[in-house]
Amino acid sequence: MKRLFLLHKMPYRNYRHRRVNKNMPYNKTKVGIIGGRSVVAGELLRLLLAHNNVEITYVESSSKPDTPVGSEHPFLQGKVSLDFSQFDCDFIANNCDLVFVSRPHMQSATVIEQLHREQIKIIDMGADFRLQDPGLYPAWYNVEHPCPSIISEFTYGLSEINKAQIASSKRVANPGCYPTSVILGCFPILKVDGWDFSRIIVDSYSGVSGAGKKASDKNHFLNNYGNVIPYRFGEHPHTAEMEQALCWGSKSTKILFFPHVLPIERGIISTVFIPLPPGNKSTQKELTELYQNFYRKDVFVRVQEGYPEIKNVAHTNFCNIGLKIDERTGYLAITSVIDNIMKGAAGQGVQNMNIMEGYPEKEGL
Amino acid sequence: MKRLFLLHKMPYRNYRHRRVNKNMPYNKTKVGIIGGRSVVAGELLRLLLAHNNVEITYVESSSKPDTPVGSEHPFLQGKVSLDFSQFDCDFIANNCDLVFVSRPHMQSATVIEQLHREQIKIIDMGADFRLQDPGLYPAWYNVEHPCPSIISEFTYGLSEINKAQIASSKRVANPGCYPTSVILGCFPILKVDGWDFSRIIVDSYSGVSGAGKKASDKNHFLNNYGNVIPYRFGEHPHTAEMEQALCWGSKSTKILFFPHVLPIERGIISTVFIPLPPGNKSTQKELTELYQNFYRKDVFVRVQEGYPEIKNVAHTNFCNIGLKIDERTGYLAITSVIDNIMKGAAGQGVQNMNIMEGYPEKEGL
Amino acid sequence: MKRLFLLHKMPYRNYRHRRVNKNMPYNKTKVGIIGGRSVVAGELLRLLLAHNNVEITYVESSSKPDTPVGSEHPFLQGKVSLDFSQFDCDFIANNCDLVFVSRPHMQSATVIEQLHREQIKIIDMGADFRLQDPGLYPAWYNVEHPCPSIISEFTYGLSEINKAQIASSKRVANPGCYPTSVILGCFPILKVDGWDFSRIIVDSYSGVSGAGKKASDKNHFLNNYGNVIPYRFGEHPHTAEMEQALCWGSKSTKILFFPHVLPIERGIISTVFIPLPPGNKSTQKELTELYQNFYRKDVFVRVQEGYPEIKNVAHTNFCNIGLKIDERTGYLAITSVIDNIMKGAAGQGVQNMNIMEGYPEKEGL
Amino acid sequence: MKRLFLLHKMPYRNYRHRRVNKNMPYNKTKVGIIGGRSVVAGELLRLLLAHNNVEITYVESSSKPDTPVGSEHPFLQGKVSLDFSQFDCDFIANNCDLVFVSRPHMQSATVIEQLHREQIKIIDMGADFRLQDPGLYPAWYNVEHPCPSIISEFTYGLSEINKAQIASSKRVANPGCYPTSVILGCFPILKVDGWDFSRIIVDSYSGVSGAGKKASDKNHFLNNYGNVIPYRFGEHPHTAEMEQALCWGSKSTKILFFPHVLPIERGIISTVFIPLPPGNKSTQKELTELYQNFYRKDVFVRVQEGYPEIKNVAHTNFCNIGLKIDERTGYLAITSVIDNIMKGAAGQGVQNMNIMEGYPEKEGL
Repeated sequence: MKRLFLLHKMPYRNYRHRRVNKNMPYNKTKVGIIGGRSVVAGELLRLLLAHNNVEITYVESSSKPDTPVGSEHPFLQGKVSLDFSQFDCDFIANNCDLVFVSRPHMQSATVIEQLHREQIKIIDMGADFRLQDPGLYPAWYNVEHPCPSIISEFTYGLSEINKAQIASSKRVANPGCYPTSVILGCFPILKVDGWDFSRIIVDSYSGVSGAGKKASDKNHFLNNYGNVIPYRFGEHPHTAEMEQALCWGSKSTKILFFPHVLPIERGIISTVFIPLPPGNKSTQKELTELYQNFYRKDVFVRVQEGYPEIKNVAHTNFCNIGLKIDERTGYLAITSVIDNIMKGAAGQGVQNMNIMEGYPEKEGL
Repeated sequence: MKRLFLLHKMPYRNYRHRRVNKNMPYNKTKVGIIGGRSVVAGELLRLLLAHNNVEITYVESSSKPDTPVGSEHPFLQGKVSLDFSQFDCDFIANNCDLVFVSRPHMQSATVIEQLHREQIKIIDMGADFRLQDPGLYPAWYNVEHPCPSIISEFTYGLSEINKAQIASSKRVANPGCYPTSVILGCFPILKVDGWDFSRIIVDSYSGVSGAGKKASDKNHFLNNYGNVIPYRFGEHPHTAEMEQALCWGSKSTKILFFPHVLPIERGIISTVFIPLPPGNKSTQKELTELYQNFYRKDVFVRVQEGYPEIKNVAHTNFCNIGLKIDERTGYLAITSVIDNIMKGAAGQGVQNMNIMEGYPEKEGL
Repeated sequence: MKRLFLLHKMPYRNYRHRRVNKNMPYNKTKVGIIGGRSVVAGELLRLLLAHNNVEITYVESSSKPDTPVGSEHPFLQGKVSLDFSQFDCDFIANNCDLVFVSRPHMQSATVIEQLHREQIKIIDMGADFRLQDPGLYPAWYNVEHPCPSIISEFTYGLSEINKAQIASSKRVANPGCYPTSVILGCFPILKVDGWDFSRIIVDSYSGVSGAGKKASDKNHFLNNYGNVIPYRFGEHPHTAEMEQALCWGSKSTKILFFPHVLPIERGIISTVFIPLPPGNKSTQKELTELYQNFYRKDVFVRVQEGYPEIKNVAHTNFCNIGLKIDERTGYLAITSVIDNIMKGAAGQGVQNMNIMEGYPEKEGL
Repeated sequence: MKRLFLLHKMPYRNYRHRRVNKNMPYNKTKVGIIGGRSVVAGELLRLLLAHNNVEITYVESSSKPDTPVGSEHPFLQGKVSLDFSQFDCDFIANNCDLVFVSRPHMQSATVIEQLHREQIKIIDMGADFRLQDPGLYPAWYNVEHPCPSIISEFTYGLSEINKAQIASSKRVANPGCYPTSVILGCFPILKVDGWDFSRIIVDSYSGVSGAGKKASDKNHFLNNYGNVIPYRFGEHPHTAEMEQALCWGSKSTKILFFPHVLPIERGIISTVFIPLPPGNKSTQKELTELYQNFYRKDVFVRVQEGYPEIKNVAHTNFCNIGLKIDERTGYLAITSVIDNIMKGAAGQGVQNMNIMEGYPEKEGL
């Protein structure tokens, strides 16, 4: 199997900075968004409208064509004058350098299958191209993948881990929200001797925005207020995404993943419980330093001595990580927090676009 | 027009206490609930299950017959073993002394039309029999009333104001949530000389539970969280209910009513702004005492010197009222808070049942 | 060491029902509350005021003597006319049959040391008499116990597990909130062969009310809103309480306990991760039935097939438990939810009082 | 009295754009912040760190000198490497072009008195220099102003209304949060014949962040959650600020202002109730167009046909305004929403800095 991801933080060359002169507007990246009504699309629009190097040329919503983008995302009113458009492959090919696809799984693949012969760059915000092994998709999503032959064209877009490959890719699968928090939290010790990933526990809690905009019992205010909702114990397909990213060599990683919904809008807190290696000598302080060193060049990862809290990453592209060792019971707990709509979706999408386009990584973030 | 309500706190005889001996279970009131899946029905069930003098004999939900009541109201699991039943007029007539009807407007009237020849007592939790003037219903609800001839059989069930009539009624229209807060807040000065109700302002804020259980954009968590939603300015039909209750003699009351949705589960805070009478001499303290005297026998109304707050009435049947006079601008502001599901619906329903059945008014509350 | 608790659900005789005739008021239990300003005391008052067999004779708050109880607990205004009193040992001995002590750790012990020669019954809501081994207190609370010799007089008051002992005790240590959720969740399999408690993980999330009423950074609205706050990883003294209760025979139980604060008022959700026994044959369904059987006589424990949610236990004395097995990774996850102020404190306190006084266990709950 | 504000949207010249070449960093405005630990200072830092034309040279907190700014504002960790400094007049004069002062009232004036001989520009985020009439301060704040002679140096910084004066000022008093929402909501009809401001009602609801960071009963999570807290009816000093701005010619404006605290972090919703002019002929649509025309050049004001909602302005510098006419009762209701920390404080502060420094008005916002 092709290893598009998980090469250990290969040296990543300086940004191309393709624009010689910032004042030449024709030099901007022309960006389209497919699936323009989603929560993630709204956040992408917010970020891209403030991005110095981007011109938004196309926002697709085939269910609401010719209506103003601001009618669906009222916080953008007065900032965007575009209307939603029908899906139109030719128009996209002629008017976009790069498109974000923000559709539910299966729909995303169907759209991308139509686009994938075009020369444009594609960042898929959905789940359809994250799992490299074509057999995993039907195993976890209970449905055949609509176009398994395209999967291998995609690079897994966890920006900090896979930067060099992302920079040279035209197709990027933006990671899931939970996996972003968990993989960033685990990666620095993945290849350190002794750490056993064969049976780790991940207990995660996410804000309601992860469940999307469509009204349902699950996101009814009365069901969330003052409540926590456990769901999909051991069955969430993000499990496969985490396990894929946290394999290494002969290491066979298995994860028990238990997601819950919190009564907040944004944010994920994931706790990973890993047994300490037998005869472990690393202190909490040393491990924290190892992490800080690992992420020293990554502007969006903060490794902390205290406990990470969602409020410090909400509305940002940061991932905050804290490590706690309990010698008495022999466990390491890794706490990792992100904004699920930012670093867990739109923020990382823009970060990946910056890497692909040679812009400074934190431009517009 | 028959004046079923608004007689000024007529002397109300002692409770009948129809049961000579508390230990005789056959003496309990057999109660049915129609529209058993609603938020209000859930709260009614919670209250009635703990009520010493009630046996629940019937819970109707024609959309989910033969499923356990606890499946719809999981907080009641282990406390109730009933299943939902189809609507069945004969069964109700034979097995219930009293039914609560908790259906949306129009549906409530349709059900009651079928029941109204029966000898059972009926408390309608809906809006269909609150407006005594048959012309008001189509004016405010934009639809013809399905059975206007029955309207006059109903007593307006604002417990504190209309106690004597409720006690002798077999048909009670339980008040709306907003009107309960506003009418209790205004009634003590309605007949005091000088107070002019011809053009008062009512600014109200309610928790999301008022909007019911059915998932919609309006009660989507992401639309409510961190937000306040104004709606139906000047058009909410509760306006008519308030105006009807706050007329007196030749006083022609007009109310500008502006409702909003708060990001909380339960509670209403209503502020009524009334101009001080010309040459007003009443101090805030005197007015507070007038109110305290007016409600001195009403166990569920607390007139306070400070500001009423929702948290002190949530999950209770209380209405807290506070009065503030601003001499500089010449206004009285009446702040009134209730739990919209309790005093604004199910709690007042049980209070009315207690009054109708001769039980102590606060039994089960 | 004396085994005051953890005897396996010994047969528990019928309630004494000490009162022959319900109408004889002198027969009521005269109850006092020490530490009357706390959140837990407020909830105790709410419950006891509605309890048919209780008369509240004394509410101590030495910091606010002679002020109305309702001024501190405004939701009780109009329901209680008592004032707070100074601490007065003689008065308590002469006027109370039973006192609840709701003071911070160390203070609770100091008060009880003064009272313990009196014949009155004592339910300590605090932490000082939960740990039977006198060496554990200084190890987990970092301070010497003020009166270690009294510890052995106390029965651990986890109602469902220790009912018979509670019924015959005059001194009861009401359990902590987290331990209540965790012990009830684990107890049914504690003595089943194969389940290994030597290194289990407990990940718990609690509402803010657990942190008390005193304003601090930790309970500042801006620190909690939209946030989750991890704290005291591996160091929370409730760990010792759980481990004490979950030892059995030669089983040496060790727990990694990781508590967090949720942005809600009430409720705890605890997830216990336990490895499946080697060669486990029990299905999720069988295990659920084992639990349901274990708690079949316990009115306040609901074992569910689905996921327990806080909203279904908030404002109740219930503990809801759900079991999930993941064969792929070999773990059982036990999810247990309670209202931390009810089953986690005041509710269980009243339940214990009912057991001690021979009243029906759910009286007033 | 000098009219520093309320001149009717005088023609405002094009921005100076003082920097010829964007790449010359020495050209940036050197900005200091005094009172660096406040909520508003945190937001100012967040905005200024992303501002292309600003260099932060000084952040004062005399209570925590030499500690990292990020320790107080953890969401800024990794973005700011400055430490807090002691107050030092000389250092400020030598190292800052402009300072924001974010201190409680009275303290702000004391600081500014020391600075006011320096040539630096000052934007006071506090309340001390908003009221032009020196007699108003003691009347509303119940304390003598520490330096009334300086008041007249300040321009009232309501950006949209007072742009020309702000552009030429070195001293700007940033408006209060409530007044910003109310004045923007009322200003367009202030000078239209017939509208009577002599006795208007303003009912406002604000998020908890308005109450600051210091832990107190008022911002305790348990007091805010599920609650609304009315306060300072008719007594809030922002009343004077609104009345000052809404006088015109012989028009004597009096406002009954009733503020409340909402259980959200950010946002204000203000409703202004004004009687329709006698014989009013303006429709809601015409009035909306009048407003849209009035604010047509103001990028941060959105006049809407529907109801404004807080969620659409949260975390932005926008003010959304909606107008509703009720002919039946003869009232206009103006609903105005802002983010109290952004347009109500830090956002408008940066907007004013942009105007004073000749940068595009929405730079960094």
